[in-house]
Amino acid sequence: MEGVDGAGKSTQLELLATALRAEGREVLTTREPGGTTLGEHLRGLVLDPAVAIGPNAEALIFAAARAELVATVIEPALAAGVWVISDRFVDSSLAYQGIARGLGIDAVAQANALAVGPCQPDVVVILDLPVSAATERGDEERDRIESEGSDLQRLVAEGYRELVRREPKRRFLVDATGSQERVHGRVVSVVREVTR
Amino acid sequence: MEGVDGAGKSTQLELLATALRAEGREVLTTREPGGTTLGEHLRGLVLDPAVAIGPNAEALIFAAARAELVATVIEPALAAGVWVISDRFVDSSLAYQGIARGLGIDAVAQANALAVGPCQPDVVVILDLPVSAATERGDEERDRIESEGSDLQRLVAEGYRELVRREPKRRFLVDATGSQERVHGRVVSVVREVTR
Repeated sequence: MEGVDGAGKSTQLELLATALRAEGREVLTTREPGGTTLGEHLRGLVLDPAVAIGPNAEALIFAAARAELVATVIEPALAAGVWVISDRFVDSSLAYQGIARGLGIDAVAQANALAVGPCQPDVVVILDLPVSAATERGDEERDRIESEGSDLQRLVAEGYRELVRREPKRRFLVDATGSQERVHGRVVSVVREVTR
Repeated sequence: MEGVDGAGKSTQLELLATALRAEGREVLTTREPGGTTLGEHLRGLVLDPAVAIGPNAEALIFAAARAELVATVIEPALAAGVWVISDRFVDSSLAYQGIARGLGIDAVAQANALAVGPCQPDVVVILDLPVSAATERGDEERDRIESEGSDLQRLVAEGYRELVRREPKRRFLVDATGSQERVHGRVVSVVREVTR
């Protein structure tokens, strides 16, 4: 589940997980960065406004948290037949660091190869919301990346669109305007289409 | 300056820096992981025996610390004409995670491309010491990696030899047995040979 900050990812992730569980599927939800002891430490570090972090280091820290999540949480779950839905994954790095920060999609993807190996999502749902609306929905308290404001978020939104153009059969822009229920309906129909 | 733990890197680095300064060169010394605020945080994390870290995440954390060191310390120094000597750099990752941990030299080098870009050392001095002797020289208190013992260190030593075979004109094994003064003499003659 991808999208700019405030697009409603965590809400839609929970609604999707509930819907899949109602059909009898075993579902694990997780979030990035975080989801492991190491990941939570790195999450605290990378979102701390007091620690200066350049774009390359930022991309590699997210990749490190992702590597631990893949190795200790996601791969064991998939091996046990569990569906995994993650609040952000490698496409966040491609959109934020690859495009919005200007490191390049390919350079960031290359660094992430060590983190994810062949463990790529079957479906990427990208919640698409005008940046102004996403900013209104965001929390009052901003972390280091959110506090950079809407210019960054606009570049991230453009980054996601570029990713969809590159792989339109695996990545889907979902209109995130309207009520939670309507957005949920759109998310479910995309996931149905790809996983049936 | 590279080598297994206890090979005498920090001593030889200081002796080399002093010798180069005596010739009128401006020299900056640094160490990995560390050397920046972010790097010191990551150093604490990666060497903490209480935090579980898989090999892929470990490699990416070292790369993140390195990226910040390159961007904020090493590149500005080189641009100002300063010589930089680092206690460990990218070859440590290639030897420890690439070979000893089995991730592969190329996979680790690929992830490190985002950290170092074209900023590769002109000379890599690898202090070569039988692992038994290095273990005796080491500190009493062991960090997470040192505490894995001499099997890991033996693989690391083999890793460094493989790296020298790949680039024998840029990487040099230096016999680290004998007195500090004798080892220093060998280090200086390698550096003279390459940088004259």
